[in-house]
Amino acid sequence: MSYTIKEGDPLILLDVKGNKILIIANKGNRKIKGLGVYNPGELIGKHYYENIIIGNKKYLILTPSIFDKVSTIERRAQIILPKDGMFIIFYCDIKSEDMVIEGGTGSGALTILLANFVRPKGRVISYEKRVDFAKIALKNLENAALADYVDIKKRDITESIEERNVDAVILDIPNPWDAVKNSFKALKFGGHIASYSPTINQVEKTVNEMRKYEFLDVTTIETLQRKMLVGERGVRPSFDALGHTGYVTFGRKVK
Amino acid sequence: MSYTIKEGDPLILLDVKGNKILIIANKGNRKIKGLGVYNPGELIGKHYYENIIIGNKKYLILTPSIFDKVSTIERRAQIILPKDGMFIIFYCDIKSEDMVIEGGTGSGALTILLANFVRPKGRVISYEKRVDFAKIALKNLENAALADYVDIKKRDITESIEERNVDAVILDIPNPWDAVKNSFKALKFGGHIASYSPTINQVEKTVNEMRKYEFLDVTTIETLQRKMLVGERGVRPSFDALGHTGYVTFGRKVK
Amino acid sequence: MSYTIKEGDPLILLDVKGNKILIIANKGNRKIKGLGVYNPGELIGKHYYENIIIGNKKYLILTPSIFDKVSTIERRAQIILPKDGMFIIFYCDIKSEDMVIEGGTGSGALTILLANFVRPKGRVISYEKRVDFAKIALKNLENAALADYVDIKKRDITESIEERNVDAVILDIPNPWDAVKNSFKALKFGGHIASYSPTINQVEKTVNEMRKYEFLDVTTIETLQRKMLVGERGVRPSFDALGHTGYVTFGRKVK
Amino acid sequence: MSYTIKEGDPLILLDVKGNKILIIANKGNRKIKGLGVYNPGELIGKHYYENIIIGNKKYLILTPSIFDKVSTIERRAQIILPKDGMFIIFYCDIKSEDMVIEGGTGSGALTILLANFVRPKGRVISYEKRVDFAKIALKNLENAALADYVDIKKRDITESIEERNVDAVILDIPNPWDAVKNSFKALKFGGHIASYSPTINQVEKTVNEMRKYEFLDVTTIETLQRKMLVGERGVRPSFDALGHTGYVTFGRKVK
Repeated sequence: MSYTIKEGDPLILLDVKGNKILIIANKGNRKIKGLGVYNPGELIGKHYYENIIIGNKKYLILTPSIFDKVSTIERRAQIILPKDGMFIIFYCDIKSEDMVIEGGTGSGALTILLANFVRPKGRVISYEKRVDFAKIALKNLENAALADYVDIKKRDITESIEERNVDAVILDIPNPWDAVKNSFKALKFGGHIASYSPTINQVEKTVNEMRKYEFLDVTTIETLQRKMLVGERGVRPSFDALGHTGYVTFGRKVK
Repeated sequence: MSYTIKEGDPLILLDVKGNKILIIANKGNRKIKGLGVYNPGELIGKHYYENIIIGNKKYLILTPSIFDKVSTIERRAQIILPKDGMFIIFYCDIKSEDMVIEGGTGSGALTILLANFVRPKGRVISYEKRVDFAKIALKNLENAALADYVDIKKRDITESIEERNVDAVILDIPNPWDAVKNSFKALKFGGHIASYSPTINQVEKTVNEMRKYEFLDVTTIETLQRKMLVGERGVRPSFDALGHTGYVTFGRKVK
Repeated sequence: MSYTIKEGDPLILLDVKGNKILIIANKGNRKIKGLGVYNPGELIGKHYYENIIIGNKKYLILTPSIFDKVSTIERRAQIILPKDGMFIIFYCDIKSEDMVIEGGTGSGALTILLANFVRPKGRVISYEKRVDFAKIALKNLENAALADYVDIKKRDITESIEERNVDAVILDIPNPWDAVKNSFKALKFGGHIASYSPTINQVEKTVNEMRKYEFLDVTTIETLQRKMLVGERGVRPSFDALGHTGYVTFGRKVK
Repeated sequence: MSYTIKEGDPLILLDVKGNKILIIANKGNRKIKGLGVYNPGELIGKHYYENIIIGNKKYLILTPSIFDKVSTIERRAQIILPKDGMFIIFYCDIKSEDMVIEGGTGSGALTILLANFVRPKGRVISYEKRVDFAKIALKNLENAALADYVDIKKRDITESIEERNVDAVILDIPNPWDAVKNSFKALKFGGHIASYSPTINQVEKTVNEMRKYEFLDVTTIETLQRKMLVGERGVRPSFDALGHTGYVTFGRKVK
């Protein structure tokens, strides 16, 4: 990425309070949350890590990191957080060139992570039966400059998966057990499945279904994170947080 | 990766009990932990996901996933676990083509993760002053078929970092605060720093040092994981685990 | 406790939504949070576990449990939660007949727990230098019908503890290390000390001070709790909670 | 408790390494774990907090705290740890004078806690169908000098509870849902039920059964603890621990 901003480049505007606005340097006035009506085309030709004034506020222009991209998305459905998403990337061995199936897309938070790691040559095919979710997800992917690596299919992943020989299938639906058979058929030998669910009962049904297909290393993990705060009065864990989000179940097709 | 095994290919031998042996299909008898004396060259021409007999034991040949590579390494020093390593990948925005500095190398567990995500065009330069660790790490990287993406430098990262304009610096040393200044100088604008430490006191000194250099988004995270076991008698969390490993502190150079 | 309500008896009014109001059956109109102006004397002669109508709302009259007493207190300062308080009761071996020193009183949440377990013959002497806290605590103790077992002293526990041969000293102040020497002098042989602090730095200084006095079994514990929710759609941990509150450090005087 | 040791008094022998031996000052040679063959009657007339020599080893004589009593018991079955037991004490409002039913007894770890808090006038009636467990539990209670407050009944609590108007029923059996009806009948109005189970499935069935009987405040809690270690090289959480033990479900009979 060049240090001069070109048309279509993604960027973060960072204000002095630490708030971040993720935008694409495209010409044309539009309403941008936190900025009001603005033409991001004005940023073309500026440089990353340069300060600019918009209105009467000072901003530092940053290249957006994957952390920035995920943390500034518009959320509609409950999202899969990076603590879980990154462990999916690990356990499913997602890497550049992979073909990954996802269902459902939701707000696209995990889709962004997946797209980030399959590029430049890989592809994410994401099944989402709800049109409103698909729309939000696409917008989030475009803002993250990752839409080029993703196809969103407006279909129900429990009905069928058309692709074959895929590297991984990632499920985030209320009834993942109904998609295990389709996932098995879609996966290549050595391919990985992951399923994210908030309740234990979903985990139990999904694990039992995965066992029917003799997936290897079937494992369910809960990941918890908390911030440590370093202040003048000492160091302590954050008073917030560490709540439950969901369990992730993994398996690998080897037979 | 082709489904026929060629000379130099990495593979996993999976026995019926689920034990895994990671080897490289190179010619020549050698002692392999779990197999005894064996010539892995015999596997050339076989196919992944085929069963073979070695001695009188049956094995399934798998392509090694990153999970397999990390979980079969030889450990000498305390390693950074994937729960922490993957969050470093995320927060530091590690991706293919990146140049990443690591110090120290230790047993190379994190080096394997980093190499996995910077390839094919990126590079990890890992500083390790102890020759015995460097040797183990190199062996682990070779077994993981990732040594081509890594340089191990036998030096102390707190003394100097020669590289400039790097994408990320990852510290896993007892005194990370002593490497913050060097890291700042080595990083490009927008580059990320991460530091892994078991104690709070290390965290406190490192955070304070990072703040001197005005790193953005300085954040310290503890990640905990536990397995959920699905058995015939019900579902419960594992009785083991969830112990502390370390805290990870992050920051980003923007000034 | 008789099942007929007598003057001065504590009771809980439970509405159909599960809200609880803790009151004392004393004559005289007064403003009661959740009820408006009401004369609790009207409840004298009624029976526990009977339904009554106040205004046009139905209530079930309950005997207040210690859980009810703690969870309905008026909070001013940050309180010590039962998860921590009960472990203090355990580790400090608090039991009926004990004389326990506490400092500071705060809102009196821990004082209520301590009083509950030292009665009927024991006593809690609680040091609180802030008059506003002492007042709130006293009101909470009276509502909990436990004020008879407690003396609140309006003094700073770091300056001196007058009592001698006490069974336990419990510290919940910003600088507990400054009260360790006084605590040591006040404790009988075999007596216990506990200190509650939110930050690690407070823990470190307090532990080091306790070690100077050769307290036995010096141990610091963090206790985390989370609710499991059993719903129609399955069982899962609560999305809230599990945040940090504080660390508790224990020791025992044996020399 | 007097500072002179009388016949029948419980005491702890603490060696210089911090190991503890819990014994009763009864006359007669017997084999004592950690001491070999010894006549504890020799300790009668000595003083607590005095040093003595046994064999060629130095010991400090301590009064046993409830912490000492619980942590030195002989374990046969999986025990309920104090982190869970103390929360049961709290939620079930166990206090001196209470009559508490327990089933099953197991190794008696929770029985010891319950007995400690119902004394001097209360009583624990503990149901245990396995004679071997009942025997171990009784021995542990005698060592803890708490057997006088406990009756162990060699019966299955799921078959019947004979007592009526009890203050609390505590269940630690594989099928607690089968004892909920009996518990409901045995409890007084305002009485509390608690059930301890390792698996989620047990929790779910028990909660559903409790709801049938309209218990108030039905709540399931998981409690996790970890030690913080304060060393010369800094403060950090323990590398062990924080594993799962069990969930505790509570309810209160109000109808």
